[in-house]
Amino acid sequence: MRFDTDSFRKRARENFERAWHEGPEVLTPSGREGRYPRLSYSRAQTHPIYEMVNRLRETYLLIGFDETCNPIIVEEKDVYRQFGPEASAVLDRVFYLGGLDRPNQGIGRPELDGISRITGKDVSPDEEARLREILQKYKKSAIDGDDLIHATSEALCIDDGMTVEIYDRVFQAFRDLEPQSSRNTLRSHMTSGWFLTLSSIWDKSPLPLRLFSVDRCFRREQEEGPTRLMCYHSASCVVAGDEISVDEGKAVSQALLSAFGFTDFRFTPDEKRSKYYMPDTQTEVYARHPVHDWVEVATFGLYSPSALAEYEIGIPVMNLGLGVERLAMLTYKSDDIRRLT
Amino acid sequence: MRFDTDSFRKRARENFERAWHEGPEVLTPSGREGRYPRLSYSRAQTHPIYEMVNRLRETYLLIGFDETCNPIIVEEKDVYRQFGPEASAVLDRVFYLGGLDRPNQGIGRPELDGISRITGKDVSPDEEARLREILQKYKKSAIDGDDLIHATSEALCIDDGMTVEIYDRVFQAFRDLEPQSSRNTLRSHMTSGWFLTLSSIWDKSPLPLRLFSVDRCFRREQEEGPTRLMCYHSASCVVAGDEISVDEGKAVSQALLSAFGFTDFRFTPDEKRSKYYMPDTQTEVYARHPVHDWVEVATFGLYSPSALAEYEIGIPVMNLGLGVERLAMLTYKSDDIRRLT
Amino acid sequence: MRFDTDSFRKRARENFERAWHEGPEVLTPSGREGRYPRLSYSRAQTHPIYEMVNRLRETYLLIGFDETCNPIIVEEKDVYRQFGPEASAVLDRVFYLGGLDRPNQGIGRPELDGISRITGKDVSPDEEARLREILQKYKKSAIDGDDLIHATSEALCIDDGMTVEIYDRVFQAFRDLEPQSSRNTLRSHMTSGWFLTLSSIWDKSPLPLRLFSVDRCFRREQEEGPTRLMCYHSASCVVAGDEISVDEGKAVSQALLSAFGFTDFRFTPDEKRSKYYMPDTQTEVYARHPVHDWVEVATFGLYSPSALAEYEIGIPVMNLGLGVERLAMLTYKSDDIRRLT
Amino acid sequence: MRFDTDSFRKRARENFERAWHEGPEVLTPSGREGRYPRLSYSRAQTHPIYEMVNRLRETYLLIGFDETCNPIIVEEKDVYRQFGPEASAVLDRVFYLGGLDRPNQGIGRPELDGISRITGKDVSPDEEARLREILQKYKKSAIDGDDLIHATSEALCIDDGMTVEIYDRVFQAFRDLEPQSSRNTLRSHMTSGWFLTLSSIWDKSPLPLRLFSVDRCFRREQEEGPTRLMCYHSASCVVAGDEISVDEGKAVSQALLSAFGFTDFRFTPDEKRSKYYMPDTQTEVYARHPVHDWVEVATFGLYSPSALAEYEIGIPVMNLGLGVERLAMLTYKSDDIRRLT
Repeated sequence: MRFDTDSFRKRARENFERAWHEGPEVLTPSGREGRYPRLSYSRAQTHPIYEMVNRLRETYLLIGFDETCNPIIVEEKDVYRQFGPEASAVLDRVFYLGGLDRPNQGIGRPELDGISRITGKDVSPDEEARLREILQKYKKSAIDGDDLIHATSEALCIDDGMTVEIYDRVFQAFRDLEPQSSRNTLRSHMTSGWFLTLSSIWDKSPLPLRLFSVDRCFRREQEEGPTRLMCYHSASCVVAGDEISVDEGKAVSQALLSAFGFTDFRFTPDEKRSKYYMPDTQTEVYARHPVHDWVEVATFGLYSPSALAEYEIGIPVMNLGLGVERLAMLTYKSDDIRRLT
Repeated sequence: MRFDTDSFRKRARENFERAWHEGPEVLTPSGREGRYPRLSYSRAQTHPIYEMVNRLRETYLLIGFDETCNPIIVEEKDVYRQFGPEASAVLDRVFYLGGLDRPNQGIGRPELDGISRITGKDVSPDEEARLREILQKYKKSAIDGDDLIHATSEALCIDDGMTVEIYDRVFQAFRDLEPQSSRNTLRSHMTSGWFLTLSSIWDKSPLPLRLFSVDRCFRREQEEGPTRLMCYHSASCVVAGDEISVDEGKAVSQALLSAFGFTDFRFTPDEKRSKYYMPDTQTEVYARHPVHDWVEVATFGLYSPSALAEYEIGIPVMNLGLGVERLAMLTYKSDDIRRLT
Repeated sequence: MRFDTDSFRKRARENFERAWHEGPEVLTPSGREGRYPRLSYSRAQTHPIYEMVNRLRETYLLIGFDETCNPIIVEEKDVYRQFGPEASAVLDRVFYLGGLDRPNQGIGRPELDGISRITGKDVSPDEEARLREILQKYKKSAIDGDDLIHATSEALCIDDGMTVEIYDRVFQAFRDLEPQSSRNTLRSHMTSGWFLTLSSIWDKSPLPLRLFSVDRCFRREQEEGPTRLMCYHSASCVVAGDEISVDEGKAVSQALLSAFGFTDFRFTPDEKRSKYYMPDTQTEVYARHPVHDWVEVATFGLYSPSALAEYEIGIPVMNLGLGVERLAMLTYKSDDIRRLT
Repeated sequence: MRFDTDSFRKRARENFERAWHEGPEVLTPSGREGRYPRLSYSRAQTHPIYEMVNRLRETYLLIGFDETCNPIIVEEKDVYRQFGPEASAVLDRVFYLGGLDRPNQGIGRPELDGISRITGKDVSPDEEARLREILQKYKKSAIDGDDLIHATSEALCIDDGMTVEIYDRVFQAFRDLEPQSSRNTLRSHMTSGWFLTLSSIWDKSPLPLRLFSVDRCFRREQEEGPTRLMCYHSASCVVAGDEISVDEGKAVSQALLSAFGFTDFRFTPDEKRSKYYMPDTQTEVYARHPVHDWVEVATFGLYSPSALAEYEIGIPVMNLGLGVERLAMLTYKSDDIRRLT
């Protein structure tokens, strides 16, 4: 509670020791809510995956890489250009993007009757004409999906509730829409984005380029498991320049991973010999961790000039990538990635 | 260059002034590379969008919200549960996810002949049996796409180059694969994720819950423009608890946006009356910025109990969302979002 | 308030529109405290000076400088070694550190009588011996100041209150203590610390060394004013190596200051020609700011080999320093530094 | 090296496999400098103490405390007001600040002769008058120490080198300057600063106040040791409000320390019963750490109204403090603090 400082000062000067002992009388007895551990200060919780995304981003910046935003949507034909004869194996695990076609809803007798049954009045010729126009405009994307109901209500001079019912019960074509797939895919590796990005900047920038991106990739898994997710984060980088060698991958691995407590590094040729890497450059990075000992944590390689040539990128490029969720599992000692996300 | 400190100390003690004037003699004349502005220290560049993602994340944490990872892939039927009669308008702008079916490649005379032409030898009955088994296993996903080529090469005792050619020229079914769409979608609003997340935790957590997520959403636009992207970031939050009112949205808006230089706030009812919000709670947030004056920057509302009930979430929930790219455009004074990404 | 999700789901399925309109009935009317702007989320406030300290630290790290902790207490003779004939001008504005000598309190008749008057009993020969011992131990620092009262109380078998009174009224030597100054000073520039730090590491480290420190310095001002404080922060760095030239200062200035919104840079010889810098290398950094236009923000130079030689540092060293408070004033548009602190 | 993408694309289309194998021919063989581990990316090193300062700052902000800048220089009489009868024990370990008085240098025959010997010419009456004026102005602080040499050179029409010699050899009063101590001290606890800060704001601010500061304090140790430094950092906070109880200290301890890996907390009465805390509120915080098990890490208490009254602070105040260097030793598993600094 508040107290009178003048009086307390006087008491202390008269007899310091006694006044000191009387100090607690200024306290208000606290109720249950005011007692620890009920009384507590909370610190907002970060999420382990985003925390790891953030730490990887900061580490890349601290070792001198510039942050980049790579395309997420990649055309199927780019996968062919990048992966050559392996493309079909890659596309096997890729998501294709599709959507609903806008339906071609005709207005005939059955529809007009259906409308009348709901609105309780006939559809006038004017209203019918306006309705047809709206449906055509919608088909041609001149009307937004968001505005369709409202525009229809206005055309028929009814309220939105009735319109919703009409679309729901009368307009058959709106009910049986099937999504159609396009030939666009979601990137499954950051590599798909790097080719597109490098292609547009490599000959306009001072070399060597050192770029990174920590962002989402997508894999069409049959099912998710303790170590595999359909939506994951890749922490990927490229170094592009005239004199680049595979040693860049080793140097980056060490600089990046030593920020996460790894102390020793071993580099072994990857048995997978992806065609977008030069032969004998695809390398697995093993690192020693105080808790986990030696674990595999990253992969790097030099892009094959066959793939680079498809994008008119005329310099060697080292690429390194690691899975953020995997690093998070190691750091937070989790054995099921699904529990982290 | 290095210099002899003993000798220099002696000279300074003999005649300080003269020794001081002789100081520059220890300098190595620098070549062109050693001269400013050639000589420079670079600071790794952050990307404006990720920078904004990061600042929004930190601000949410500083005002006491916990970080959450919401599902990105949402079943079509969840969109119906969340958006009710508006679902079809929403689905109109949503990406559906598809993929390639694994082909049913038969092995008959033409295929065996085709293989022989490439390998220069007949296919033995054993090899044929092994090949059939591989193709069936692949169809049933018992073999990974990554392993198909290698397994085939082993079965036929040939090298991978020949196998690639066989798949490319002989196995018709592998060449004409058409992606098929599923009924899974990519979230177009963070709201789709919040219903799923809240549903699984609301009755197991101390209330009120204050959660946020800053992450990607996807909109199937006809085309991208200066203010619209197919892949964008939403900075979204929910407050869920017994006593939640629409004023939560105002309080969060102010706390969040004042960290980005906005000084005054105005709240106006949104003309769009989404059915996943309670009537009269959907609100547009206008904020005053020293450079841009009044701009619209966020939207909030209380989720409709009709939608919450579908997920058995039995408490009021305030939801606020803002587009990260839009905030980045304001902050970095850009008038074309595509140039920022 | 909580609501029954089963019942709400049923209502929504019977009549979505009506159920939607009934949504608000689940809200608890909020009292005055629950209404914006009373209802608010607070974001903890950072302090502009520490915020600037932190941003400078992060920027130094991002341009590749290692963080260092330099000595704060510097012997007077080091100032002479560093500043040569200018030392006396520097020392004129430096704080010297002093302290209280531990008093030589004798115990004679008057003291014994004084003690008796307070305790109401005679001091026994044993007690007197113990008291003498305590006072001698204290004088020799074998007893801590914190423990003196308690030890005395035990020796005299009295309570602490009485002991305090005895020291206060009887032990004359304890009352008239005068602080005595030593020949140690508080660093007035970070430079004083750099010489000491570099001296111990320059020949054991890979070159060039790039080090920074953002920390406190102290100036004995006659009085503080709108632009001068006795305790301020210096954001200082050194680059030490065989080929260092004055262009390092320009390169660092630009990299560091461009992170704070400065866009152009001009370097002009400083009229002050400090003797710890080589002749003609002391340079003032002017930078252009969107709000303030051209302002002076930093100073750099190459340390004179005369000074370096005193510390056996046998390579050229560039030093740059800027005042954190000044940069904060520019950034936060303040015209009185005292209001920022 | 650069390569011709047209030609490479053509080769890949003719024979993918062969072109792929030829990929490595675009590489420039790297010299020794280009090979790992010579080739390396460095990440600027942070310093453990400043890293800990920064993490404590961020944690305080995340639990809702506002950052404050407290006075570093504290008058001796404030120590008496705060510590009452314990003041002398506190002052025993405090640094007093002193400085050099500006000397009273007379100009008589010996000085004029001394000057002549150095300049090789007589001092004219005009010059003598100007010199006297300068010395008087300097004494009265109307001339800055930095400007003394230059002003003297102008007055005597000689160069700075000669002037420096004159001050050095002729002006006796400038050579025998003794630093004099003032009655100002450097804060030894952050508490000294909190009283001053709270005093000026407590009745102008909404309560409860939650403030923190992580900054330097100074202790006059006989000598530094593995766990004691003369210049250390305190991470201190106060909570001031009508209903504050000692449980605030427990709640803050837990929130703050759990961010540093401590998992359990125990609170035991401190044997030291400082008079600036209320009786029976001074508490030691023990926390359990995965590596160190139970360790003492912080102290808190409620300020005594006797001390608060001296500053007219009329509400209870909880204060908690911890030593940053100690926490850094635990976190970085160091057993000698001097090696960390």
